[in-house]
Amino acid sequence: MKEYFEGIKKIQYEGPKSTNPLAFKYYDPEKIVAGKPMKDHFRFAMSYWHTLTAMGADMFGEGTAKRPWAGKEGMELAKARAEAGFEFMSKLGIEYFCFHDIDIAPEGNSLEEKFANLDEISDYILDLMKQTGIKCLWGTTNAFSHPRFVHGASTSPNADVFAFAAAQVKKAIDITKKFGGENYVFWGGREGYETLLNTNTALEQDNYARFLQMAVDYAKKIGFTGQFLIEPKPKEPTKHQYDFDTMTVLGFLRKYNLQDHFKMNIEANHATLAGHTFQHELNMARINGVLGSIDANQGDMLLGWDTDQFPTNIYDAVLAMYEVLKNGGIAPGGFNFDAKVRRGSFEVEDLFIGYIVGMDTFARGLIIADRLLQDRVLESFIEERYASYNEGIGKDIVENKVGFEELTAYALKHDKIVNKSGRQELLEDRINQYIYTL
Amino acid sequence: MKEYFEGIKKIQYEGPKSTNPLAFKYYDPEKIVAGKPMKDHFRFAMSYWHTLTAMGADMFGEGTAKRPWAGKEGMELAKARAEAGFEFMSKLGIEYFCFHDIDIAPEGNSLEEKFANLDEISDYILDLMKQTGIKCLWGTTNAFSHPRFVHGASTSPNADVFAFAAAQVKKAIDITKKFGGENYVFWGGREGYETLLNTNTALEQDNYARFLQMAVDYAKKIGFTGQFLIEPKPKEPTKHQYDFDTMTVLGFLRKYNLQDHFKMNIEANHATLAGHTFQHELNMARINGVLGSIDANQGDMLLGWDTDQFPTNIYDAVLAMYEVLKNGGIAPGGFNFDAKVRRGSFEVEDLFIGYIVGMDTFARGLIIADRLLQDRVLESFIEERYASYNEGIGKDIVENKVGFEELTAYALKHDKIVNKSGRQELLEDRINQYIYTL
Amino acid sequence: MKEYFEGIKKIQYEGPKSTNPLAFKYYDPEKIVAGKPMKDHFRFAMSYWHTLTAMGADMFGEGTAKRPWAGKEGMELAKARAEAGFEFMSKLGIEYFCFHDIDIAPEGNSLEEKFANLDEISDYILDLMKQTGIKCLWGTTNAFSHPRFVHGASTSPNADVFAFAAAQVKKAIDITKKFGGENYVFWGGREGYETLLNTNTALEQDNYARFLQMAVDYAKKIGFTGQFLIEPKPKEPTKHQYDFDTMTVLGFLRKYNLQDHFKMNIEANHATLAGHTFQHELNMARINGVLGSIDANQGDMLLGWDTDQFPTNIYDAVLAMYEVLKNGGIAPGGFNFDAKVRRGSFEVEDLFIGYIVGMDTFARGLIIADRLLQDRVLESFIEERYASYNEGIGKDIVENKVGFEELTAYALKHDKIVNKSGRQELLEDRINQYIYTL
Amino acid sequence: MKEYFEGIKKIQYEGPKSTNPLAFKYYDPEKIVAGKPMKDHFRFAMSYWHTLTAMGADMFGEGTAKRPWAGKEGMELAKARAEAGFEFMSKLGIEYFCFHDIDIAPEGNSLEEKFANLDEISDYILDLMKQTGIKCLWGTTNAFSHPRFVHGASTSPNADVFAFAAAQVKKAIDITKKFGGENYVFWGGREGYETLLNTNTALEQDNYARFLQMAVDYAKKIGFTGQFLIEPKPKEPTKHQYDFDTMTVLGFLRKYNLQDHFKMNIEANHATLAGHTFQHELNMARINGVLGSIDANQGDMLLGWDTDQFPTNIYDAVLAMYEVLKNGGIAPGGFNFDAKVRRGSFEVEDLFIGYIVGMDTFARGLIIADRLLQDRVLESFIEERYASYNEGIGKDIVENKVGFEELTAYALKHDKIVNKSGRQELLEDRINQYIYTL
Ligand SMILES: [Co+2]
Ligand SMILES: [Co+2]
Ligand SMILES: [Co+2]
Ligand SMILES: [Co+2]
Ligand SMILES: [Co+2]
Ligand SMILES: [Co+2]
Ligand SMILES: [Co+2]
Ligand SMILES: [Co+2]
Repeated sequence: MKEYFEGIKKIQYEGPKSTNPLAFKYYDPEKIVAGKPMKDHFRFAMSYWHTLTAMGADMFGEGTAKRPWAGKEGMELAKARAEAGFEFMSKLGIEYFCFHDIDIAPEGNSLEEKFANLDEISDYILDLMKQTGIKCLWGTTNAFSHPRFVHGASTSPNADVFAFAAAQVKKAIDITKKFGGENYVFWGGREGYETLLNTNTALEQDNYARFLQMAVDYAKKIGFTGQFLIEPKPKEPTKHQYDFDTMTVLGFLRKYNLQDHFKMNIEANHATLAGHTFQHELNMARINGVLGSIDANQGDMLLGWDTDQFPTNIYDAVLAMYEVLKNGGIAPGGFNFDAKVRRGSFEVEDLFIGYIVGMDTFARGLIIADRLLQDRVLESFIEERYASYNEGIGKDIVENKVGFEELTAYALKHDKIVNKSGRQELLEDRINQYIYTL
Repeated sequence: MKEYFEGIKKIQYEGPKSTNPLAFKYYDPEKIVAGKPMKDHFRFAMSYWHTLTAMGADMFGEGTAKRPWAGKEGMELAKARAEAGFEFMSKLGIEYFCFHDIDIAPEGNSLEEKFANLDEISDYILDLMKQTGIKCLWGTTNAFSHPRFVHGASTSPNADVFAFAAAQVKKAIDITKKFGGENYVFWGGREGYETLLNTNTALEQDNYARFLQMAVDYAKKIGFTGQFLIEPKPKEPTKHQYDFDTMTVLGFLRKYNLQDHFKMNIEANHATLAGHTFQHELNMARINGVLGSIDANQGDMLLGWDTDQFPTNIYDAVLAMYEVLKNGGIAPGGFNFDAKVRRGSFEVEDLFIGYIVGMDTFARGLIIADRLLQDRVLESFIEERYASYNEGIGKDIVENKVGFEELTAYALKHDKIVNKSGRQELLEDRINQYIYTL
Repeated sequence: MKEYFEGIKKIQYEGPKSTNPLAFKYYDPEKIVAGKPMKDHFRFAMSYWHTLTAMGADMFGEGTAKRPWAGKEGMELAKARAEAGFEFMSKLGIEYFCFHDIDIAPEGNSLEEKFANLDEISDYILDLMKQTGIKCLWGTTNAFSHPRFVHGASTSPNADVFAFAAAQVKKAIDITKKFGGENYVFWGGREGYETLLNTNTALEQDNYARFLQMAVDYAKKIGFTGQFLIEPKPKEPTKHQYDFDTMTVLGFLRKYNLQDHFKMNIEANHATLAGHTFQHELNMARINGVLGSIDANQGDMLLGWDTDQFPTNIYDAVLAMYEVLKNGGIAPGGFNFDAKVRRGSFEVEDLFIGYIVGMDTFARGLIIADRLLQDRVLESFIEERYASYNEGIGKDIVENKVGFEELTAYALKHDKIVNKSGRQELLEDRINQYIYTL
Repeated sequence: MKEYFEGIKKIQYEGPKSTNPLAFKYYDPEKIVAGKPMKDHFRFAMSYWHTLTAMGADMFGEGTAKRPWAGKEGMELAKARAEAGFEFMSKLGIEYFCFHDIDIAPEGNSLEEKFANLDEISDYILDLMKQTGIKCLWGTTNAFSHPRFVHGASTSPNADVFAFAAAQVKKAIDITKKFGGENYVFWGGREGYETLLNTNTALEQDNYARFLQMAVDYAKKIGFTGQFLIEPKPKEPTKHQYDFDTMTVLGFLRKYNLQDHFKMNIEANHATLAGHTFQHELNMARINGVLGSIDANQGDMLLGWDTDQFPTNIYDAVLAMYEVLKNGGIAPGGFNFDAKVRRGSFEVEDLFIGYIVGMDTFARGLIIADRLLQDRVLESFIEERYASYNEGIGKDIVENKVGFEELTAYALKHDKIVNKSGRQELLEDRINQYIYTL
């Protein structure tokens, strides 16, 4: 097979002292951390779209990327991208990929042609999977780019669009199943509204729930056992998206009795657009039992749109890995780099660097989070802080043995309350010490 | 009784041409709009705190307000405020008030003394209510200002604080019941976290749910039939508050099977702090059947904190009244002015002007929203827009008669989709025309 | 000539009661307001880019717009757009247009070809200008979309890019002069940085100043007497843009002694992205004598990117027109609709509606602002508020007759200070009354 | 003298492996870095207000802080705070303090009494300075908290307020001179507007400039040679403050020819409230020659108000120290901790921990920034990136030898431009490697 990334060899672990841009400094895939190989903690995935189809365009400028598959078209382009992608993953030691249907095959001139293209290219990709051992973390459909989805997909005011979206999701689940995909993602980029003036939110949300129920039914019917994931995002492209954040989605799922069938795919940049930290979203998902998978990236806190940067902030990585370890791991989910190189980082080398930097950041985050947990740095503090719920009136409270009247009687006798400091500054510094010195 | 606001007579409706700052231009309480007197649409309420106890301090400056009860202390001050408040409401024709326990009585040196103060002042206020016919829209407790609540109330790591908060809420419900209050509000200003590093969010949310269940149980026991309301706010004073917004609260309530007992008290400025419009929060509450009451104010979209300004934006008022009319009204809730005059508006006259301006803004909003509904301006557009769900495949969808397979078969035959414009610009202009010309 | 917008006749003024979407309700071009015809207050301009070349794509979706010039390419497309544009302006009664070089002609395969294309199409457009009487408000170059400008134009680290940008601006000034353009705009969409880690801000800003000086020199040399304008924007597409806002640009211009040659082109949506109101930016420009022209649009205060919506907010329009009237008018600048129809408003009719709505909003804003000024609503209040500077110690201060010592002597004797209320709520309501009842 | 912080000994440097909360891990005052002792790089200062007078109140809650001077009042309290403050600085090895007039002495009942209080307490503090060798980094006045400043100080509509503010600043300069203060700060917390509807911005800014000129004149007259500093902040408490950010202030100073007399006091949290990074503000100040001093703290990027947290983010510290080193140091400015312990960190120990954490963060930042500069990590990349300006057409550009015509001739021959990647991801990772491994 043609080599696309000539001059770039398999990326090796060279350790923290390496200054080789094309080497891992912390990500050592087989190294055992917290009882298992590093790579099993992450299950890193390549995002097909940012890596293989995006070219660095933004709202004010054309694509800048230099890519070795430039100049090709149609199915030939689709195959070149697939080949390049598997070479890319192999060179990075990435064992999973995530894809939208339109990432892998041309749209075609009809739905039938689109399906035919998907059938053809999925055979081709399946071959590459077998050759390389690379697996599918999740599939999804793109029901937001084509003009037909201008007003939404399952929440479109046009029933024909609902039907079209259903057909797309059915096919995308079929292909994901064919690939042995371990999850299937729903990201409702146009499921929301541009203005309430023209929107029947009640009908739209009911329809959205119907759509998800159909997906559940269909998966059951065909025996697709992958985990369904919803990826919250508050806005962009749509003014307001229904899947605003984890708690909003949980409220929605519980209303329609769908809560047992969906977990969350948490993206860092979506968390911050919703006014939350990345850790917050992971934590909310974890304590509600729905932490499914992670779209690993980072945003710019001073910009109001989804920048999807490769993650380099060690604080975010440490706290994310802390939540993942507390969750008992992320499988069958993984860490998908829903990240794109900056428009000014347009060379092929930057694509490798982006992934390397991201993998290293999370690898170091894992090492630190594991040690924090081993040393019970936060755990000890928190246990002591909430100790009053382990005995006396606190125990009665958590065991639901008392009500307002008993508590009032207690409070009248214990109204000189003594609290302890929350020690925020100290704890922030403790994290710093682990980051610096490990 | 002493007159506190000398020189200010009962505020009269003088019509749109009046330039008298101390007259209503649109709010004509007995005027029939949409089948009932204006005043019954709103059930306007005075906020005890902003109106009677706040003095205009901010984080960088002392209070500036000039108030006729200055110089008094303790129970004497509490009574002067009550008298002034009922005079104020009488002069404005406001028929309801909302209060926190600490607004009406001094804290005292013990919980017992606090309760005794509340018993005494509530007798006094009850007298004023009887004399004036003014009613209680809702009561609440302040479980966020005192240092004991530094780490939360029902979500405090300290079980003694949970007990103390329970005692406060019990007493506040008792007083609200004594006043015949039609609702009781929970605003969890410290129920959240400053940093995840020291927080057990799972235990805190469980405890919060336990606390709310105790309130439900207690109300049932004593026969308090007022509506329980939760007032969402995403942050401030706490870095992250659990009651982030309506959908978050619904997710929480449904998890703990509390959804039948609580509705929302929506505050405009809290909506925008959460990244939503005021209408969005009202709409989400309405379509989920939990639009309970409204804290009427407005924020500054370029400032990141709760400015609680008196509402003057006609767009917000029109769209809020639109949602309220669609909801079939707001009772037993109402419109509480959780609003404060600007620090630079420190004269007594400004206090009246603030309320007049707010009431006029909503009055005009009501008139416009009613006419929009009568003319079916948005309704006709929306009905037409979603018409495809009334027949054919759309009808099958909403009647749950089809699944992915049937829809795929349909889509393969109907893949040339034609959408219609959403006409956002036109609809925005239509609202303008009603604002200008009514 | 071919008619592009068949079925749409010249848009007429039909007055406030009209419900015809394709008629003006307030914009009555020849009506005299504040001493001159409405149209002369605005000098409305069509933006070539949003109107003729944009197709409704966003970061997550393809273009949706249906346009009568679809299917054409190259110079044929360029001419069709020009014809359609002049028909569009004629039908709306818009007398000016604004353009980037790449809006009117294809890029070509070399700079020479680009220039040749511009020469050819500008002859063609000049003909259309003569036939219709439509004039050029301003020209500009696009030095931000092509990959060559990925790191900036005049602030590129690559001197060849600086030269290329210089050639583009020279040509764009030439074409603007050929059109008799009354202004020339600089918008530095890539003049800034993505990360400080790779940026020499000192050299970049020096180079930017050199570039502007060259433009000044060149204009003088060729006798181009149009006003140079800088359009501030804080970010997007670039992480940080040097022309952040009006005051930032003034700081920059004064440093390099360029302040006499440039005024501001203020865009509403850029103001809000910078954390300011539209009025703030207009006010800062006005009191510094640099209010040059206006890019009329509006943003969504809950979205963090430049939505460039057609302006429908009457508050913004009133306060903008208030500043323009206080400025003695906007000429030789004008009101350019740097606004695009929503992606969901993809029909040709929406394009007309967008402009009509925008023109009506500003027309009504003008009428209200004029009346506010005639009635001296704000003026009287402000005069009275600052009256202390007209006599005594205040007069001494503004006449620079006193220093800290004299003022201290004065203050020691006058330390019981009495302030008056700022009456913000009342003034906001006054604006409302004018909006409702005029 | 009484010991206030019993049980807390002088804080010692114990190195990175220490887990003693009351020890430095990185700040080793006499250690030579980049040619001078660490402490001389920072010139750390205690903020009198956050440390000695603030009690942890926020907009929704009372003070929580436990302080050993509780219970005292008037001048007795003032002296106790002074004593405690000097003990605090001595124990931390902090050699400077910063103060507002009202931090050190009670307001009194008249201006005369205020001055008398200041005279008395400043003698007392001067004694403490002599005893301890601790110096004054800067003084300032508080012209924002008292109700008289409700509408501004030098920008008040009331000339008596201007005079009063002048008297305060005169006295504060006198006291600062008495202390040998090396700088004097202007922070215009109320110099701005709440609403443009009642504001004459032109007169207000002229008056502000007059005020600053009077300060310059007075300093000259009395021989005060400390550096004047302006501290930009965009908003809070005021809706819009004139000193929005560094570039805005520079624009203002240059307009009134004041630019030679003022430098900037950059606060991290003010930078982010203005939409900038901390490094951005430092960089803009540096390249304009006005980097005067630093208010060291950090904000919460998801909160819209000034949280003034103790700085623990190592990225910010590294990049700040990078700018300071490039600036050739910060003297006669310093690093003032304009930071407050969280409301939940209410114990005395937290006060020490806050400072220790902040000093350690900047110490480590210094070490890393110094090594980055020694290794020329960014310098080499940047030099290479802008190399085209060292020869050929680039050299001609920076030497002002060419204009648009020459550049056009050049561009026509060089229109196939080749750019290089900006390598943002790689550079971000390089910073990480230095943070981890140094
Ligand atoms: Co994603
Ligand atoms: Co994203
Ligand atoms: Co409220
Ligand atoms: Co509020
Ligand atoms: Co513009
Ligand atoms: Co724009
Ligand atoms: Co500061
Ligand atoms: Co601050």
